[in-house]
Amino acid sequence: MTLRILATGGTFDKHYDPLTGQLGFADSHLPQALSRARLTLPVELEMLPLLDSLDMQDTDRQRVLASCRAASEDAIVIIHGTDTMRETAEVLGQAQLLKTIVLTGAMIPYEIANSDALFNLGFAIGVAQALPAGVHVAMNGKVFAWDQVRKNRAAGIFEA
Amino acid sequence: MTLRILATGGTFDKHYDPLTGQLGFADSHLPQALSRARLTLPVELEMLPLLDSLDMQDTDRQRVLASCRAASEDAIVIIHGTDTMRETAEVLGQAQLLKTIVLTGAMIPYEIANSDALFNLGFAIGVAQALPAGVHVAMNGKVFAWDQVRKNRAAGIFEA
Amino acid sequence: MTLRILATGGTFDKHYDPLTGQLGFADSHLPQALSRARLTLPVELEMLPLLDSLDMQDTDRQRVLASCRAASEDAIVIIHGTDTMRETAEVLGQAQLLKTIVLTGAMIPYEIANSDALFNLGFAIGVAQALPAGVHVAMNGKVFAWDQVRKNRAAGIFEA
Amino acid sequence: MTLRILATGGTFDKHYDPLTGQLGFADSHLPQALSRARLTLPVELEMLPLLDSLDMQDTDRQRVLASCRAASEDAIVIIHGTDTMRETAEVLGQAQLLKTIVLTGAMIPYEIANSDALFNLGFAIGVAQALPAGVHVAMNGKVFAWDQVRKNRAAGIFEA
Repeated sequence: MTLRILATGGTFDKHYDPLTGQLGFADSHLPQALSRARLTLPVELEMLPLLDSLDMQDTDRQRVLASCRAASEDAIVIIHGTDTMRETAEVLGQAQLLKTIVLTGAMIPYEIANSDALFNLGFAIGVAQALPAGVHVAMNGKVFAWDQVRKNRAAGIFEA
Repeated sequence: MTLRILATGGTFDKHYDPLTGQLGFADSHLPQALSRARLTLPVELEMLPLLDSLDMQDTDRQRVLASCRAASEDAIVIIHGTDTMRETAEVLGQAQLLKTIVLTGAMIPYEIANSDALFNLGFAIGVAQALPAGVHVAMNGKVFAWDQVRKNRAAGIFEA
Repeated sequence: MTLRILATGGTFDKHYDPLTGQLGFADSHLPQALSRARLTLPVELEMLPLLDSLDMQDTDRQRVLASCRAASEDAIVIIHGTDTMRETAEVLGQAQLLKTIVLTGAMIPYEIANSDALFNLGFAIGVAQALPAGVHVAMNGKVFAWDQVRKNRAAGIFEA
Repeated sequence: MTLRILATGGTFDKHYDPLTGQLGFADSHLPQALSRARLTLPVELEMLPLLDSLDMQDTDRQRVLASCRAASEDAIVIIHGTDTMRETAEVLGQAQLLKTIVLTGAMIPYEIANSDALFNLGFAIGVAQALPAGVHVAMNGKVFAWDQVRKNRAAGIFEA
């Protein structure tokens, strides 16, 4: 099997700009993260515009859906901001694509100490190969169906 | 569900000793790695003696088997050295425990730059929840049945 | 000799808050950084309020001056934000304290990949022991007199 | 001024080989470390054979001396293994070169968590610019004259 990974930005891929002192987006960390994972699994990495998920509009979610629909792979991992991960999952879930789609992200950027990004990437790549078709959110070591999950922002966790 | 994690050492948990200049074992990195993963999944971490897997004897593998047998959890992840991961998987596979047991490890220690350890931990925790009962080796982003895997030492990868 | 280190915040000590997604201040990274440096040099670490140097007011700079004045040590390193490092250096320089005072900071926070913080800390601790009395800014591997330095914000470097 | 940096290996530059599981030498970490330091100070990096300092022979030390002698710079930092740093310092000290030569190294390799390498590099680059001519060992945040220092191997520190 081949796995497709869609990069859409989010905290996972936030980058610190030393000139502005702000976190934003530059090159994605996914090529480095995937190299580090020492994969022999064939992976197709597709770069979509990198966005803070709070800035995602309907057209952005439709673009993610279009990429999932166009993909020849049956298993897709989407790297996504956590704040509106559920909304994108809903758009994908309602489309009923007959593919295994797993959304994940990070609470701490890949490049910052103690980041959960690499763990979550491995977790999502694991469940994407093992779960049946459907749209899933994979965070905090748990897998949630797309229509049975919410982010608890005060606690910084996903829950059913 | 609750997941059990057995720590047995291996490259994943190797630690650099500044006085001797050697890699050996001290405290396991698993508590820190699991904290970093921001799990809400209940996890039971069980520390077995930390060993280089080349030093593992039959009695060591029997201890791993005993821990799997005694576990009340149906899903178990074992952190193990890569060199004899297959041998331990075989001992566990032949015992036919009716649990989902996933062995993983690392090619680069958790505390060294570009380590695959955190990815592999996430990967194994993902597949351990999604796969049916059986004994699996989870490395390089792939899942192998215990009796259909070997380590290619020259290439540093696992293959069917 | 004993060295005093004053922590005042700045980029060096910025911390990512996973709940807000913002960089702010929590516990200083200096205790960890100093432990990592394996110092046998006696060091007295004094924590002042951790501030973004753009938020520093006259009273904040007077507090830094008061700490330098009160210090029993002849060598002092100040961890400071880069944006107004020169302004604080000026306040200290004009006070003519007859101590060796070295201001440094970081362009990338200690906890973010590729940070210059640990290098700069070592650099400042080195020059603070070797330079005569006076107030110096130590950044980019160079030492500047307090009245002959400015930050070039477009380039992100200090220059004469 | 321009600074010369001589890379000779040592723990600072040890690299983990995932195929053998051993620490050895590959590409030096110094180009990355220096880039990270955001230097505007002109630096000339000279790569000598990377060696464990326990493997250094007289000819190796003579090569280091020859490089120091041939250097057009008046300030030189040498990255060196800690075990025989004093021996090389002695060879250089007896040559009385009228340059400021600072030897440093690391107790934990640059690529391993909690390494002191980047701190020591900054520390040595600082004192190399500020000290008068002579041969110095810069470790543990302290500067030692070449003929008044020894490594306490049991404690893992340098002392007078």
